[in-house]
Amino acid sequence: MENKIIRIGIVGYGNLGRGAELAIEKQSDMTLVGIFTRRAPSDVQPVFTNTHVYAYEELSQYQDKIDVLILCGGSASDLPQMSPELVTMYNIVDSFDNHAKIVDHLHHVQEAATKSGKVGVISVGWDPGLFSMNRVLGEIVIPDGGTHTFWGEGLSQGHSEAVRRVTGVKHAVQYTVPIEDVLEKAREGIGADLSAADRHKRVCYVVADEKDYERIEQEIKTMPDYFAPYETTVHFISEAQFLKDHQKMKHGGFVIRSGNTSSENKQAYEFSLALDSNPKFTASVLVAYARAAFKLNQFGETGAKTAFDIPLSFLSPNPEKI
Amino acid sequence: MENKIIRIGIVGYGNLGRGAELAIEKQSDMTLVGIFTRRAPSDVQPVFTNTHVYAYEELSQYQDKIDVLILCGGSASDLPQMSPELVTMYNIVDSFDNHAKIVDHLHHVQEAATKSGKVGVISVGWDPGLFSMNRVLGEIVIPDGGTHTFWGEGLSQGHSEAVRRVTGVKHAVQYTVPIEDVLEKAREGIGADLSAADRHKRVCYVVADEKDYERIEQEIKTMPDYFAPYETTVHFISEAQFLKDHQKMKHGGFVIRSGNTSSENKQAYEFSLALDSNPKFTASVLVAYARAAFKLNQFGETGAKTAFDIPLSFLSPNPEKI
Repeated sequence: MENKIIRIGIVGYGNLGRGAELAIEKQSDMTLVGIFTRRAPSDVQPVFTNTHVYAYEELSQYQDKIDVLILCGGSASDLPQMSPELVTMYNIVDSFDNHAKIVDHLHHVQEAATKSGKVGVISVGWDPGLFSMNRVLGEIVIPDGGTHTFWGEGLSQGHSEAVRRVTGVKHAVQYTVPIEDVLEKAREGIGADLSAADRHKRVCYVVADEKDYERIEQEIKTMPDYFAPYETTVHFISEAQFLKDHQKMKHGGFVIRSGNTSSENKQAYEFSLALDSNPKFTASVLVAYARAAFKLNQFGETGAKTAFDIPLSFLSPNPEKI
Repeated sequence: MENKIIRIGIVGYGNLGRGAELAIEKQSDMTLVGIFTRRAPSDVQPVFTNTHVYAYEELSQYQDKIDVLILCGGSASDLPQMSPELVTMYNIVDSFDNHAKIVDHLHHVQEAATKSGKVGVISVGWDPGLFSMNRVLGEIVIPDGGTHTFWGEGLSQGHSEAVRRVTGVKHAVQYTVPIEDVLEKAREGIGADLSAADRHKRVCYVVADEKDYERIEQEIKTMPDYFAPYETTVHFISEAQFLKDHQKMKHGGFVIRSGNTSSENKQAYEFSLALDSNPKFTASVLVAYARAAFKLNQFGETGAKTAFDIPLSFLSPNPEKI
């Protein structure tokens, strides 16, 4: 295979797109052709002043200038359309994370990519992605056991948003936190059947007027589904402290597989991430899989791929050294 | 690909071979044709009474009855000859773990396997193997950082043997133990340049006559290379306690990658194993890669492969479900 610089396009420019722009800058074998946005290109401020910004509608004109598109849209409404559509023109990689619909998404991308002769790598990032790989590998090497996934300590966008909708709340974040005892027991192989609410607690930091504290705390703790089944703590803090301590999108979690490889011995397998920035880490994983998408296509592969289909050597910028 | 039962042969029957026999029993898509030994077959007592035992010299006669051989010999003298020799007749998998000579071993197996049209999967297990995969993947997704490997808490065969050679020692085991503070700092990204002696302490359990305690402890702690540079503790215990508590071959360790995905954020990636039985876990990994060797060869692949070359879907007994 010729040793060429991989030409990347980023589609969508929120936190994930910004992370991809930063991550590409760190790769010796990649160059960023530009960002494609549905907004007015002049409204997008990239991290690097020399990064080009183009309108989404211009995408079809770059087919001989871009090797892989990194799709940085959302899983709810963007990616289900965007991934099958853009894989008709480009190799793509996405972080589609609606677990219940991954199989459908795979089929749509597979159909389009097989026709176009391109590669579509879907659902990579850390969960789905690295966590999925570890769940599968743990089950393969410890066939007789239980798999335990914990998320956090990390900021949940959905739950933070739910707290912000409570009347009187000025600012709020919600952290999902694994319950330490349950985590310890998972390492002993206990509790594989527990629910998410049994495994996690929810900790909120809220800025509000003091007269509203009691009512707000009550409303949060009794919110169905979001908080009611969980052990929930609400801390009221000042706006200054909120802006100082709660702006990072930290996240992470644990995949634990414990059980027996054969009858009489207990084996424990654990993978964990502690991330200061969830979107920047996800972007870094996407960039590695963009390399894989390009190389797989160079080797004549086409169709939809997940993390399970791709050897690590395809992700590495220096496969000859590993 | 036809959905057939994979027919396995085990070559060598120590702790690893026994682990392989047990692990194959757990696989719905495999059958064990037999164990091949250089000892007199009647001297080998398999776990299951219906397991066949054959002489090593008979191996050439089973080429149409066995799909993959799992080589359970040692890395010092067995595998450097055995793997290139047997891959002339069979798909093989080995756990060659002499890190300094893996590249040579790869070339020898590659040359023989390319000629014979077979697949030789080398150096799989947990280190090299799962740890290698995590070192590489950690470096790919966190390009600007340090990699920290800790072994243990685990029984070291070589160090236990060194203690047993001290005059007056009746029984002894040595455990390698990560130093907790250094492990914590690794998670913060500190100490990637530390030596093995800076990262680990050595804890010995020794059975001896009380009159010899002081001299034995002194001799152990001052033993060059093995113990002198390490923080070493020697516990003298009774023979009964030794036989009760120190017969398991437990092991494990940590691969930590910490650093930045891009300039301003700290990300930590951690993989760990806590194994009651080192050889049984290694055998379980070997069995999964035996499946991969078979499938790769069915797909027309030949030559030497490592863990970096093989997608997870090839390891799974149920790839359609992952």
